[in-house]
Amino acid sequence: VTRVDLDVPSGAPAAVPTPAPGDPRLARLSLNQKTVNRLGVAEATDLCVRHGIGAIGLWREPVADIGAGRAARIVRDAGLRVSSLCRGGFLTAADDAGRAAALDDNRRAIEEAATLGTDTLVLVVGGLPAGSRDLDGARRRVADALAVLAPEAGAAGVRLALEPMHPIFCADRGVLSTVEQSLAMAAPFPASQVGVVVDTYHVWWDPGVYHQIARARGRVASFQVCDWVLPLPADTLLGRGMMGDGHIDFRALRGAVDAAGYTGDIEVEIFNGDVWDADPDAVAATLARRYVTEVLD
Amino acid sequence: VTRVDLDVPSGAPAAVPTPAPGDPRLARLSLNQKTVNRLGVAEATDLCVRHGIGAIGLWREPVADIGAGRAARIVRDAGLRVSSLCRGGFLTAADDAGRAAALDDNRRAIEEAATLGTDTLVLVVGGLPAGSRDLDGARRRVADALAVLAPEAGAAGVRLALEPMHPIFCADRGVLSTVEQSLAMAAPFPASQVGVVVDTYHVWWDPGVYHQIARARGRVASFQVCDWVLPLPADTLLGRGMMGDGHIDFRALRGAVDAAGYTGDIEVEIFNGDVWDADPDAVAATLARRYVTEVLD
Repeated sequence: VTRVDLDVPSGAPAAVPTPAPGDPRLARLSLNQKTVNRLGVAEATDLCVRHGIGAIGLWREPVADIGAGRAARIVRDAGLRVSSLCRGGFLTAADDAGRAAALDDNRRAIEEAATLGTDTLVLVVGGLPAGSRDLDGARRRVADALAVLAPEAGAAGVRLALEPMHPIFCADRGVLSTVEQSLAMAAPFPASQVGVVVDTYHVWWDPGVYHQIARARGRVASFQVCDWVLPLPADTLLGRGMMGDGHIDFRALRGAVDAAGYTGDIEVEIFNGDVWDADPDAVAATLARRYVTEVLD
Repeated sequence: VTRVDLDVPSGAPAAVPTPAPGDPRLARLSLNQKTVNRLGVAEATDLCVRHGIGAIGLWREPVADIGAGRAARIVRDAGLRVSSLCRGGFLTAADDAGRAAALDDNRRAIEEAATLGTDTLVLVVGGLPAGSRDLDGARRRVADALAVLAPEAGAAGVRLALEPMHPIFCADRGVLSTVEQSLAMAAPFPASQVGVVVDTYHVWWDPGVYHQIARARGRVASFQVCDWVLPLPADTLLGRGMMGDGHIDFRALRGAVDAAGYTGDIEVEIFNGDVWDADPDAVAATLARRYVTEVLD
């Protein structure tokens, strides 16, 4: 099974030319660093510059490899925006030590986001603790942790962006499954402190997603795109596809997010072993092209 | 990875004895035939009798192997109830020929259910047609087909039981993902014609599931149980686990279904290659025991 179709380096002429750097249609495109998982901050930044991608979504681990201050300088010197930092969260521990460690880790993530100059810290809230079947309890602990962290994030100029995860990840990764549920969890806090992520991969199946995105006005902190492709690989974390290779209607979801007033960057975030193994320049060229043909009008 | 833990045939004494045939706690237990996928109708019926399981959920393919009339006699002569027939559905075809074929197939399924003496025909509604990204269109076509089939089912004494499927199956198998959505699709029809299936595997993650089950009074046509176990296997269809091996709170969901007035059979339906390869008597004994310890109070 070919899980990724990089159409740019193929011999056939592309029906749609790859957009060149400076093409105004790329104005809101952001490369989430996870899409080119082998590249460090400097290499991923250079890649964005070469392909006219004006923003980058960074991950904490590669940022930590060189330090947040240095990462911030590299991205700023290249003239890029940092669209988000991934990721904080994992707030469902039921024991005091686990809770305290999670709060500390999220405080560090808030600091890192501020240093990097992004106002968006993506939170993957965490799954069920080992042996627990208490979903409601796990969700309550996320809410309790937000009550501690949200004002601290706000004071640092950072917004906590709750990411609903596809229900396939409910047990082990994210007990928030829908935009509706994420909006309810964000509601007690000012929109400047807590928002929601709309990631097409996680929410495309939801019969209520268009209605809920319309309700999310002012709360959409991040819009991420990648496709749902079948069959899923053995490691279901790595099953995400390039836009256009799967089943998601990107234009409809992008239109809904636009209509809800979101004007920020649109991050392409693809967890996929084949994409990670491919030539990063081919990946960047393909995603820029697919962004134009599949996501924009 | 051991994907199934059959505790009955192990050497260690069981903390809870396996319930004996005639144990009143087994009164509502049903064996869905798919749990013992290698067995024909006669063999699965015998297995139920040996283990004091009073009902069986049949599948159309093994029923067709011997004919619905003969299958009905075998089950009736053994003193068992047929709790449901799996399955009709796959109603999302966008072309006229596909639509007509699906209606015909569902008409045959309704007849078979009536012959078998069950009032419950489970419908897996179908996924996106090849190349389509139009989820709303697929859902509309299901509703259109129900408008044709529901009165015919009602006239035959059969209720169409809409099964919301886990969102992992949205693209290829079921564009109904939640109890709420299934109730909305059932609402135009009398409860005697269209109901919903509550299958723990498909709905456990849903933040609205308890509220929606409470709303489903009179509409719950079938309650099926099996567990969500990780990691998922390469074929995600076969990732279902024995109750107690995974992350689902069965007592809570069973209590909700009870509170909504459901008094029917509780089917154990496990798609799992290891369970299918195991000794069916060990599977039946384990599931009777786990039913008592994990599903009942």
